[in-house]
Amino acid sequence: MSHIRSRVSKEASQSVLGYTASLPFDRRLYREDIAGSIAHARMLGRQGIIFPQEAEALVKGLELVRQELDAGKFEFKSKLEDIHMAVEVRLLELVGPVAGKLHTARSRNDQVATDIRLYVKDVIDRTLAGIRGLQKSLVAQAESNHGAAMPGYTHLQLAQPVLLAHHLLAYFEMMERDYARFKDAFKRTDVLPLGSGALAGAAYNLDRESVAKELGFSEVSRNSLDAVSDRDFVIEYLAAAAICMMHLSRLAEELALWSSAEFGFVSLDDAFSGCSSIMPQKKNPDVAELGRGKTGRIYGHLMGLLTALKGLPLSYNSDLQEDKEAFFDASDTLLASLGVFAGMVASAKFRPDKMGCALKNDFILATDLADYLVKKGLPFREAHGAVARLVTYAEGQKKSLGELSLSEYHQHSPLFDEDARHISLEASLAARDVTGGTAPKQVARQLRRAKEVLGLN
Amino acid sequence: MSHIRSRVSKEASQSVLGYTASLPFDRRLYREDIAGSIAHARMLGRQGIIFPQEAEALVKGLELVRQELDAGKFEFKSKLEDIHMAVEVRLLELVGPVAGKLHTARSRNDQVATDIRLYVKDVIDRTLAGIRGLQKSLVAQAESNHGAAMPGYTHLQLAQPVLLAHHLLAYFEMMERDYARFKDAFKRTDVLPLGSGALAGAAYNLDRESVAKELGFSEVSRNSLDAVSDRDFVIEYLAAAAICMMHLSRLAEELALWSSAEFGFVSLDDAFSGCSSIMPQKKNPDVAELGRGKTGRIYGHLMGLLTALKGLPLSYNSDLQEDKEAFFDASDTLLASLGVFAGMVASAKFRPDKMGCALKNDFILATDLADYLVKKGLPFREAHGAVARLVTYAEGQKKSLGELSLSEYHQHSPLFDEDARHISLEASLAARDVTGGTAPKQVARQLRRAKEVLGLN
Amino acid sequence: MSHIRSRVSKEASQSVLGYTASLPFDRRLYREDIAGSIAHARMLGRQGIIFPQEAEALVKGLELVRQELDAGKFEFKSKLEDIHMAVEVRLLELVGPVAGKLHTARSRNDQVATDIRLYVKDVIDRTLAGIRGLQKSLVAQAESNHGAAMPGYTHLQLAQPVLLAHHLLAYFEMMERDYARFKDAFKRTDVLPLGSGALAGAAYNLDRESVAKELGFSEVSRNSLDAVSDRDFVIEYLAAAAICMMHLSRLAEELALWSSAEFGFVSLDDAFSGCSSIMPQKKNPDVAELGRGKTGRIYGHLMGLLTALKGLPLSYNSDLQEDKEAFFDASDTLLASLGVFAGMVASAKFRPDKMGCALKNDFILATDLADYLVKKGLPFREAHGAVARLVTYAEGQKKSLGELSLSEYHQHSPLFDEDARHISLEASLAARDVTGGTAPKQVARQLRRAKEVLGLN
Amino acid sequence: MSHIRSRVSKEASQSVLGYTASLPFDRRLYREDIAGSIAHARMLGRQGIIFPQEAEALVKGLELVRQELDAGKFEFKSKLEDIHMAVEVRLLELVGPVAGKLHTARSRNDQVATDIRLYVKDVIDRTLAGIRGLQKSLVAQAESNHGAAMPGYTHLQLAQPVLLAHHLLAYFEMMERDYARFKDAFKRTDVLPLGSGALAGAAYNLDRESVAKELGFSEVSRNSLDAVSDRDFVIEYLAAAAICMMHLSRLAEELALWSSAEFGFVSLDDAFSGCSSIMPQKKNPDVAELGRGKTGRIYGHLMGLLTALKGLPLSYNSDLQEDKEAFFDASDTLLASLGVFAGMVASAKFRPDKMGCALKNDFILATDLADYLVKKGLPFREAHGAVARLVTYAEGQKKSLGELSLSEYHQHSPLFDEDARHISLEASLAARDVTGGTAPKQVARQLRRAKEVLGLN
Repeated sequence: MSHIRSRVSKEASQSVLGYTASLPFDRRLYREDIAGSIAHARMLGRQGIIFPQEAEALVKGLELVRQELDAGKFEFKSKLEDIHMAVEVRLLELVGPVAGKLHTARSRNDQVATDIRLYVKDVIDRTLAGIRGLQKSLVAQAESNHGAAMPGYTHLQLAQPVLLAHHLLAYFEMMERDYARFKDAFKRTDVLPLGSGALAGAAYNLDRESVAKELGFSEVSRNSLDAVSDRDFVIEYLAAAAICMMHLSRLAEELALWSSAEFGFVSLDDAFSGCSSIMPQKKNPDVAELGRGKTGRIYGHLMGLLTALKGLPLSYNSDLQEDKEAFFDASDTLLASLGVFAGMVASAKFRPDKMGCALKNDFILATDLADYLVKKGLPFREAHGAVARLVTYAEGQKKSLGELSLSEYHQHSPLFDEDARHISLEASLAARDVTGGTAPKQVARQLRRAKEVLGLN
Repeated sequence: MSHIRSRVSKEASQSVLGYTASLPFDRRLYREDIAGSIAHARMLGRQGIIFPQEAEALVKGLELVRQELDAGKFEFKSKLEDIHMAVEVRLLELVGPVAGKLHTARSRNDQVATDIRLYVKDVIDRTLAGIRGLQKSLVAQAESNHGAAMPGYTHLQLAQPVLLAHHLLAYFEMMERDYARFKDAFKRTDVLPLGSGALAGAAYNLDRESVAKELGFSEVSRNSLDAVSDRDFVIEYLAAAAICMMHLSRLAEELALWSSAEFGFVSLDDAFSGCSSIMPQKKNPDVAELGRGKTGRIYGHLMGLLTALKGLPLSYNSDLQEDKEAFFDASDTLLASLGVFAGMVASAKFRPDKMGCALKNDFILATDLADYLVKKGLPFREAHGAVARLVTYAEGQKKSLGELSLSEYHQHSPLFDEDARHISLEASLAARDVTGGTAPKQVARQLRRAKEVLGLN
Repeated sequence: MSHIRSRVSKEASQSVLGYTASLPFDRRLYREDIAGSIAHARMLGRQGIIFPQEAEALVKGLELVRQELDAGKFEFKSKLEDIHMAVEVRLLELVGPVAGKLHTARSRNDQVATDIRLYVKDVIDRTLAGIRGLQKSLVAQAESNHGAAMPGYTHLQLAQPVLLAHHLLAYFEMMERDYARFKDAFKRTDVLPLGSGALAGAAYNLDRESVAKELGFSEVSRNSLDAVSDRDFVIEYLAAAAICMMHLSRLAEELALWSSAEFGFVSLDDAFSGCSSIMPQKKNPDVAELGRGKTGRIYGHLMGLLTALKGLPLSYNSDLQEDKEAFFDASDTLLASLGVFAGMVASAKFRPDKMGCALKNDFILATDLADYLVKKGLPFREAHGAVARLVTYAEGQKKSLGELSLSEYHQHSPLFDEDARHISLEASLAARDVTGGTAPKQVARQLRRAKEVLGLN
Repeated sequence: MSHIRSRVSKEASQSVLGYTASLPFDRRLYREDIAGSIAHARMLGRQGIIFPQEAEALVKGLELVRQELDAGKFEFKSKLEDIHMAVEVRLLELVGPVAGKLHTARSRNDQVATDIRLYVKDVIDRTLAGIRGLQKSLVAQAESNHGAAMPGYTHLQLAQPVLLAHHLLAYFEMMERDYARFKDAFKRTDVLPLGSGALAGAAYNLDRESVAKELGFSEVSRNSLDAVSDRDFVIEYLAAAAICMMHLSRLAEELALWSSAEFGFVSLDDAFSGCSSIMPQKKNPDVAELGRGKTGRIYGHLMGLLTALKGLPLSYNSDLQEDKEAFFDASDTLLASLGVFAGMVASAKFRPDKMGCALKNDFILATDLADYLVKKGLPFREAHGAVARLVTYAEGQKKSLGELSLSEYHQHSPLFDEDARHISLEASLAARDVTGGTAPKQVARQLRRAKEVLGLN
């Protein structure tokens, strides 16, 4: 809320000021705000809207303000203003009345929209880097555990053997899509609104393109009414963040599950584990759980901002002020999560020995037995039925498939030969030799591609 | 996250500590935490689990810690712990090794659950008071504007005349339901979990009932596994808050709408209005808009916590740590909103003159004309049709209903007599003399009841 | 959308009719609609607003319409109307022009609000029954598995032993809160809006109280503007449903987890399991997973309706039409889920043998060892530390606690005696003898209370 | 849920079958399912996995099934299966046991993922067309109302004059971003999962690329575990739909607002309006309101599916079955909304006369007065202050700016000259001659570009 109270005669109360104040959170935008003001002042000078020496004074003053803020020496007079006024008031102290010319041909509406777009662009860059960081951890683990087999699950039931590397690279692929989504979101963020004025466009001879260039924007907005009321780019970031965090929640769930005594597939590093205040033996996957829990927070911010925008008439309304805290908290959460997950994955000790134990249940090879019969000519549906009956029989006998005799196999299909009794884990893995399959050859190919993407070759 | 790192050999990194730290937000719970610890220590003493003088030493020490915190003199050693450890570490400094006995028969899990329940109970009390405050503003305006008529709307179209007081009291009723919902939520919050241990119950001879009594809880929890993993009460608060805030968003929408030049039904006080940085004539309903926008924030927190709890296995998981920030921000937002809305409503100047202008469009009396025909024996459906045609005719003639001649009325129904041309606003209002209706008599009754509820008679 | 197109000259296109039609979903409300109309017609007759014989004709006609609908013989002329017009049009065919008198002193707005309240009340009753059904299954399993011990978990890590019955009764408690929440929601649903007219109250001498009595409502609404625009009761149901479904999602998660080969704590009945189209050995906990997944659906409907109501001006707006499909789908989902979960729990085979295996890891008794030291006088914090070091030592030695010698115990605390080496599972359980604890005595008490609640004693 | 109950001995009850059945909704996918099966069968034949004549028989049979379904002659034996089994069972009847070979080298998991991707791709195409349709209506209205001025609003307060065409084109820009977002979502949908098997890849020598080509996919999936558990593309569609629908909700809000008697800026066509069952004079913007209300529905589906995916372990789980109904309802809603909004906008009658009345309040030119002073050399901040005081003064005098004398102007700034008293609406508009501004020249440029995008030149 702008506190230029030129038009209203009464002062707002403390509680109202507290309610409307944005400084506690928008002070984060000071670098963007000052950069935007500098570019604006220079352009005003170049266009002759203010005198060149005025422009110069403004730029110098703004640089001083930035130095004060960078150095933590800036004194905020009141918590109850916004960062834009805080900067402008200080500028006035530093350069005198010419400070009043900075806001020429500009409105708070296009100024704020510019600041937040600059900020979001930077956050997207950091998010992309964060994704790459987690991908590197996944790839490093896939590489160092190459060859390790584990049970693949559907419905959390033993399904078919897969390579651990294959499983880890599934997350690499999810992150690839996240990366692409953030890249796409960047395109729609990379548009300069400055020059749109309050809503109708500025009434001065501006050179918007040069401002865009100086600030690193690829385009200028094409409709001023839209430009000041558009927060799509924040929502799009939040939506991409929600999907990305959902991926992390799945990884977190698996790490928590695999850390349990019952699975035992992974031992998380102590640095990513917590203890119990009462149970001396406990080592808890706190970081994974927190990451899983924080997923809700990002979903919530997405929902919150979608709600705030619903049914808003054009153009600017104060409801839009809700964009910032939601974005700050969501992006902080996502960036921190990507960072700690990268560390957690990199330092985790996977336990191929425990995975091997879980693979001893040879029912996991039942699909291979069905495929065996198919390759002998039986239609798949019939092969599937025969093996299902064989498995039920083995269960009743409390035997593994390997413990059944050939004649017991024959009871369920005459097509079984001795070799059916010796389908190995290795053969099962190697058989899945299609693009994307778990055959070692294919996983090696996936890994090579992943390393290329990461520039690791 | 508990930072009792007795079981893990490695120190967590700064980024992990930052990720898991709860002190930045859970320090708010210090009063509840210390109150809970004092009650626990006293009970341990009474039950002979620790020596009475030990209990006394703990209580004294805890009171000192509280004084330090109250006075802002407490020195937080690190931002990266939680409030519980911060208190306990300071207690150790103050009272020596006996501090280590405080956590006897207690776990962080039941301790935290107790703290947050105490806190939520207090917030509910404040929320109830906040609701009453806004209701008082609504009732005061209803009373001081008694007799003022305004257009009632459906679909934002002029529908039938109503009293402004009637309209304002509609919000009183919404708030009444909110009040009742928070009261109901209180019942389910008012249960002591302490004594549930980590999950299985404490292995000591506790007297939970006496702790409940000292802390003001009505009941003790009946199942320890449930007690440490239950956050229903937080979600229930958030759900009630979401509905309450939705009500505020409707009020905000109407105040913003009525503040427009086109409606002009209300003039918000300057103290609740904002200005424009560029347009000198503007006076904006910033507070109403912000309140409307903040609705999304509360919806988001509700969604966030529901998500965090979805699919969590029993009993305690670190995902639950997400309850606090969501609750703090949502309840802060609701309490602040109730407060500023009470002030905004109380100080608003309603404009019966402008409402009167809007009522000059006498099509708003069309229902009364249809009722007129019904009372002459025409089935309602036919009466409705006749008046609809009459209105369409008048529109075509660019006349108001009052400007049509009796013969023009007769073209649409022979049942019209001269008196049909003189249905007044007052008669229309007075006719709606059923419970809940807009007849002045009924609205006066609604107002009396509202004042009784508020203890204002 | 009402299709009484008396005022608009053009017919809506098919696509618009499809967009606005509510018949495809609101036909569900026919019993409520007709019941409401009958009560309204009778009252109109009693009050002399229409003639007694007219009232009688209307009632008879409405009963005929209901019979046709009950028998599936009602012919819907068009998919593109609403149930209210469908009924009224048929009534006209059956009883002639007097049908046009039914809508006297009534609006679609108060009529629809009445119908949906009647419907929600009935659904709440069925929801309460559904909750009781699931509670019965939980109690029956708790009873038939009495004495069975299992590992209790926090953070999905082995924590302390608990009784399976204790764990199951945790869900009983969650359901108790759900029950109470729906009961509370019922109170706020149980209010008659009929008589509120379009928004301002009816302009006739109605006896609203007698209509309320006939329809089984406890109260009549107190403000007509509020009454036609209030959908709080639907949202409150959805919020309670979201929490209840969240509880089911936690149960589902545990059943899926426990069905895994790695846990093996439960075998779900075939009737609640699915197979794989490709893997012959698979038996999947499909029902549990679907229930977990459907949680999102209910959260979504809650968010959807909260969004629809956000920022709506008074009184009725067509946005409110969105209440029905959301409510129907959410309540169908919850009722179906409660039903199938009751069957799934009742028919599940818990496997105390497998739980016993998991309990063999005696680190789960570490808390008991710490409590042992506390009872010898060591402050809890020190005891906790000593046992943490002992556990770390044992891990290093690849030994269980029971395999360590007394002297090894002494290395970590001189307070250990021989009996420390023989803390049993039974002793651990029995020690948690506080209200809500897992001691068999306490669990038996919890079970007795649960059976009382269910009227099973 | 797959009902191939080869492994489970008991039949599921009706209620369970009802719970797990997907046929009621997944029958929509029959064309995609059959297309996928045909491509799969052909490839199996080409690769020699089945005999060419078997492949041919399968293809012919599948085409027959499709014809039956297209013609509505397909008899569904039970409501309680899924579309995949329904097709396969019928195929068995038509072609005999060879039907059992169709499922060779395929799992339900990769089959379903393929079907839904094909379906989503088609829906995206239709969504893009729907967006273009609405854009065309907006552009047509912008063009036919060229030159019409209206008040621009911020905070719903009169702000600065704008062109109606400019306002309408703001929605064109929003839709442009929606278009781009759906295009980007398409890229990530356009990936073939078939060949991924249940989770580990098929154990046959498949030619996935040829299947992709036949089905029109640009890529094949690169990781089978990811491919069967990925529903990102559905969520991404829902997120883009939520933003698009939010845009429609803003348009709907404005149309409802402008339809009010108080604004009167638009008259919606009767075909897009509703009537009242009680108030004969009413014409309600039902379609706009419904569209605004349905926004919640799409937000809800987005939240629902995000919730369902949260914390799911790899790979396939039945929770994923929740993707379909959410997607179907959301995309149906969006497509229908785009369609009816296109019609509603196209047929709306905008009322420049009423807009002109609203512009008579010349305070809306206050910014121009401030700019006037700036151009005379006053720093903007001072100019803003002077004009604010002038406006406050005029308000106090109950005069418009045009009614003040030059000396009254001079009281607030000596820089005012006579020409300040004659700033015209036209001059105000023309002054905003920057890219995106409301100057007629600029709006014409925006319009030209819009028509180019739509291929309308």
